Amino acid sequence: MLKLFYAVGSCAVASHIALEEAGAAYEAVRLDLRAGDQGKPDYLAINPKARVPALATDRGVLTENPAILAFVAQSHPSARLAPLDDAFAFGRIQAFNSYLCSTVHVAHAHGLRAYRWADDPGAMAEMRRKVPQNVAECFGLIERTMFEGPWVMGERYSICDPYLFTVAGWIQNDGVDPTRFPKVWDHQQRMKQRPAVDKVLTLYRS
Amino acid sequence: MLKLFYAVGSCAVASHIALEEAGAAYEAVRLDLRAGDQGKPDYLAINPKARVPALATDRGVLTENPAILAFVAQSHPSARLAPLDDAFAFGRIQAFNSYLCSTVHVAHAHGLRAYRWADDPGAMAEMRRKVPQNVAECFGLIERTMFEGPWVMGERYSICDPYLFTVAGWIQNDGVDPTRFPKVWDHQQRMKQRPAVDKVLTLYRS
Repeated sequence: MLKLFYAVGSCAVASHIALEEAGAAYEAVRLDLRAGDQGKPDYLAINPKARVPALATDRGVLTENPAILAFVAQSHPSARLAPLDDAFAFGRIQAFNSYLCSTVHVAHAHGLRAYRWADDPGAMAEMRRKVPQNVAECFGLIERTMFEGPWVMGERYSICDPYLFTVAGWIQNDGVDPTRFPKVWDHQQRMKQRPAVDKVLTLYRS
Repeated sequence: MLKLFYAVGSCAVASHIALEEAGAAYEAVRLDLRAGDQGKPDYLAINPKARVPALATDRGVLTENPAILAFVAQSHPSARLAPLDDAFAFGRIQAFNSYLCSTVHVAHAHGLRAYRWADDPGAMAEMRRKVPQNVAECFGLIERTMFEGPWVMGERYSICDPYLFTVAGWIQNDGVDPTRFPKVWDHQQRMKQRPAVDKVLTLYRS
């Protein structure tokens, strides 16, 4: 059985929702990041990067949201979470999810995790100061040029939707008014009404 | 015909090599980043992110290396650049390429492109100071836990190889001795001997 390693407040919620939407048989294993679970030997043996999400399968471990999301879609084809027989349409999904992981998540991470890129407190404060601008620019681009509607890729719900939902859920705490991006904001509200999303979010609230 | 937008000194070389390895019919269009070509209206109409690579297809534009690489592999199956019928093996490829785009490229970018995350010159200098440590940590992890050998994913050359080759080619300028990572270093030398790589690199030298 699949085993998803997740933590409250992490981007693992994206992969978690996708597993739930796919109707996958999986177990969810919670890590406590404040207690440093991600750096303990047991977990480093699973994911040497000391991050979540990680998805243990009977063939080995997969990490990184874009990879886990694509795996969930490909291994649960009946859930139709990605266009699996269309390289271009699949490529658009990968492009969107790559942008979230390489640019949008990174823009956000310069707030709470500025220590990754500098040791000096003043430099970290300067990075935090620029977070609202960078995050707003990313979401402006998503709103204007990427979001098709009603779902990210258009009429069909896909593995882009839980990932956008996850990252968009952070922007208010990043100092950005989410209602500036009406399509993304409306998407947030509709995502919360999905039973799979509601079920997963319950785990992240407690 | 496919049209790849690239620039000297950019990560576009990864997708460029993959197109060449796939035997794809494509045209390469060079942008001059110093002249600001990436921000001109003609190019923003192609890629509003103002970055390279971008791959124009007859159905639209794809961006982000992991997406373009997967598209090249899926649309040129005879080149066997990825395991297309094995969701787990494909997931490992996506996980590796996602790590390169979201963590390794980002660690490197805090050198020359620190201005993305702070406006203060002192903060940018602090970010640059930490680049060698972060880049070395990434490559330590790749060397110890990800690189199978002789190619990234083992016996078969894949879309991970040109991407690793690209990012590993930056680390000496990042202040990291590449010979500290013997498997990755050896991979660099073997990559340069491939005709497809040699052909593409010629374009990036001039």
